[in-house]
Amino acid sequence: MTRYSLEIRIKPRPGLLDPEGKAIHHALHSLGWGEVDEVRVGKVLYLDLDADSEAAAAEAATAMCRKLLANPVTEDFEVAVTGALEGAGS
Amino acid sequence: MTRYSLEIRIKPRPGLLDPEGKAIHHALHSLGWGEVDEVRVGKVLYLDLDADSEAAAAEAATAMCRKLLANPVTEDFEVAVTGALEGAGS
Repeated sequence: MTRYSLEIRIKPRPGLLDPEGKAIHHALHSLGWGEVDEVRVGKVLYLDLDADSEAAAAEAATAMCRKLLANPVTEDFEVAVTGALEGAGS
Repeated sequence: MTRYSLEIRIKPRPGLLDPEGKAIHHALHSLGWGEVDEVRVGKVLYLDLDADSEAAAAEAATAMCRKLLANPVTEDFEVAVTGALEGAGS
């Protein structure tokens, strides 16, 4: 078993309203950053996970997104394995 | 002027409580993913910005984080330039 560090990014789908992004966009303009155009806000999850291989870790994270972490109607997600610590999960 | 796409990740500082991460960790265990260990939840902002150079774009985003986007007491942030579209912001 290897312990993998994963990063999961969950992002509102293009075309869907993102009120938090709109609010930040507006606040940045008010503070003088008029050169900012489009702001979208998503979530990023960092997690550690014991798995047999990098592919198995990514697959488990994808299943978690499908079942719990992301809303399939309004959100897209990306899974990235960012690190591995050999033997740590045994 | 070039239009840059940036990705800003804002993450709770290590050692600080992250109740949302704890709740997700607990939910994943309840669903059978006992191999998940540590979950931290942050925000990711995607924004487009007109600037003269990649360094200027990253610098502006860093200033935004300091002034508005991140809480310096509880959060760390990372800025990454993920794309550039020459001449689009002119």
